[in-house]
Amino acid sequence: MATVKLIEYAQASPEVRAVYDDIMATRKIDAINNFWKALASHPPTLRRTWETLKSVMAPGALDPLTKEMVYLAVSATNGCDYCTASHTASARKQGMTDAMLGELMAVVGMANETNRLADGYQVEIDELFLRRD
Amino acid sequence: MATVKLIEYAQASPEVRAVYDDIMATRKIDAINNFWKALASHPPTLRRTWETLKSVMAPGALDPLTKEMVYLAVSATNGCDYCTASHTASARKQGMTDAMLGELMAVVGMANETNRLADGYQVEIDELFLRRD
Amino acid sequence: MATVKLIEYAQASPEVRAVYDDIMATRKIDAINNFWKALASHPPTLRRTWETLKSVMAPGALDPLTKEMVYLAVSATNGCDYCTASHTASARKQGMTDAMLGELMAVVGMANETNRLADGYQVEIDELFLRRD
Amino acid sequence: MATVKLIEYAQASPEVRAVYDDIMATRKIDAINNFWKALASHPPTLRRTWETLKSVMAPGALDPLTKEMVYLAVSATNGCDYCTASHTASARKQGMTDAMLGELMAVVGMANETNRLADGYQVEIDELFLRRD
Amino acid sequence: MATVKLIEYAQASPEVRAVYDDIMATRKIDAINNFWKALASHPPTLRRTWETLKSVMAPGALDPLTKEMVYLAVSATNGCDYCTASHTASARKQGMTDAMLGELMAVVGMANETNRLADGYQVEIDELFLRRD
Amino acid sequence: MATVKLIEYAQASPEVRAVYDDIMATRKIDAINNFWKALASHPPTLRRTWETLKSVMAPGALDPLTKEMVYLAVSATNGCDYCTASHTASARKQGMTDAMLGELMAVVGMANETNRLADGYQVEIDELFLRRD
Repeated sequence: MATVKLIEYAQASPEVRAVYDDIMATRKIDAINNFWKALASHPPTLRRTWETLKSVMAPGALDPLTKEMVYLAVSATNGCDYCTASHTASARKQGMTDAMLGELMAVVGMANETNRLADGYQVEIDELFLRRD
Repeated sequence: MATVKLIEYAQASPEVRAVYDDIMATRKIDAINNFWKALASHPPTLRRTWETLKSVMAPGALDPLTKEMVYLAVSATNGCDYCTASHTASARKQGMTDAMLGELMAVVGMANETNRLADGYQVEIDELFLRRD
Repeated sequence: MATVKLIEYAQASPEVRAVYDDIMATRKIDAINNFWKALASHPPTLRRTWETLKSVMAPGALDPLTKEMVYLAVSATNGCDYCTASHTASARKQGMTDAMLGELMAVVGMANETNRLADGYQVEIDELFLRRD
Repeated sequence: MATVKLIEYAQASPEVRAVYDDIMATRKIDAINNFWKALASHPPTLRRTWETLKSVMAPGALDPLTKEMVYLAVSATNGCDYCTASHTASARKQGMTDAMLGELMAVVGMANETNRLADGYQVEIDELFLRRD
Repeated sequence: MATVKLIEYAQASPEVRAVYDDIMATRKIDAINNFWKALASHPPTLRRTWETLKSVMAPGALDPLTKEMVYLAVSATNGCDYCTASHTASARKQGMTDAMLGELMAVVGMANETNRLADGYQVEIDELFLRRD
Repeated sequence: MATVKLIEYAQASPEVRAVYDDIMATRKIDAINNFWKALASHPPTLRRTWETLKSVMAPGALDPLTKEMVYLAVSATNGCDYCTASHTASARKQGMTDAMLGELMAVVGMANETNRLADGYQVEIDELFLRRD
């Protein structure tokens, strides 16, 4: 159970409803998921988080599916259950197939393994990896 | 300084050299970076890690650039300096532009923020995110 | 279900009971929560952990509410469900309001975001941040 | 060395300069630290991150010193060197004494220890910690 | 609920069944646990992960019980519920007593505490800890 | 550079010297490493941390070498450079060979990989792993 009361649309203040309306319009959905209902316990965090998320996840130099898969990779690495569930669902909606999910998780697993090997052996960064302007 | 002696090609056993040769041939490079020289202190780990990495990072349902960016996202999330440096370099080699790196880091930052908000408020997973067969 | 048998007061050894009694007296409560019942499976860990916690969380240069909020910030960052639930409850008991929790989580979210941006871009520490005696 | 070119004020675009000017005016300082110079490689991330940080860290239900100490606690937990250095400096500027830093780190250490004990024994959350409306 | 369909033996392809058969033969068990059934959604990951695990966990310079306890220490540190449950069970099967588990968790807790103290104070590595060939 | 002034023996208070003396006597060494010199900036943390470490790392149901290797496994997983360097040195002093270090790191890498696969696929814990009294 969340540590704050979830704010339902019916009880929401106009400020919160405006964000909820924008979430539903942007995503073409007709219900708000629990994450936003929890953030609504602190309206400035709700508004800022939604606005940042909306612009960060919009199509740009990277397409929305790639962004969703990166989001999922980070969420799995952090062991965040809520985010793993919601971004797996979002990525599937954007077109992620089982084969893509399988390869994504294989990369996530491998990166987590080699990150700890590099840290565990305290390997020094090679000259060739340094940025050159 | 690494906690194990780095194994240079000249001093390497035939088993280690075979892996080094395959790394250089596969990646079309003519030198081995420190990560592999450290793993070579334990030849079975060197061989297994290289073979897994080689097949995980090969083109498949996801293209190599996407895989490199996911690897970088995980490495930044784990705060692994070596891996962040090496996979930023690899992703650039595969075509990652500054604009793509900027968007990638924005997604990584955002995911790390919302992962902790979801965990911090202990938000329950919505029914609609559960897998349906 | 915990991976060890929880030790109830009725079955506890005198050594464990002494710690339980001190926890209840110090906190002015009349029941022991599951964390301590699990640690009691290894009495030296129970005793050491309680004694350290008791002195670390006592009022000092920082007040108990600030300490509870820091504890919650760390627990949310680590994604520890048990600790997030128990320290949210403790902080509320010490006077944390919904507005304070909202701002606390906003700082936690922001810190997690910028930590990964600083790591992801491998930003070098500025001279001005170094300690000067 | 950062993986992107740091953007100095002299070379910055008007959009980036506007953010730099606001950072210096808000903080009453006359130089920009490396974190922002790295974010400036992607101007939308620079602007969004600064604007969020500015409002999240402003005085509110929590005072700025408490917020800086929470930021430091998260940065130490994540092992982010840059953020630990910069937020230790900021917290000292806001009035954190050696005694306060000592107690802060003691809480951070303790929370990290008990987080892993609770996770390691898979302790179930007690009924009494659950939110009641 | 897992984000992929678990593959039961009866529905498994010959490739997946071959891995399942080897898992059951190697471990002298007659059922497959959920982890492998989830990995089977991507057969190359199933095969590679099992083969690596099988050789990494085999007796060598370290005995299987020590390896299981190290696995558990990492899983508790990462807060992975599934892995903590399964490796606590495996370690007990290999002979881990309650006293050993108690001492293991005490070391895990202590290491997590001092890791963050060393990072939080940014302690520099002493010369005497550097490798000497 | 550490964020606090390191306390050298010559400048230390009697309380701090007593801890330093016990560290040197217990470990049969004649110098204090930087970690303790940093903790000495807050004497109660120095004393508590040393006393806990001394009893946690003493021989018991687990031998000191196993404890040092578990400590190293956690430190590598957390990416703590200082702790990785110091506990690699301590483990070698206790008899860890290159072959043992190689196997240890292989287990650490593997555990970090499978932790994230289990979390990424949200695998449910099997009945058979649950504790039975």
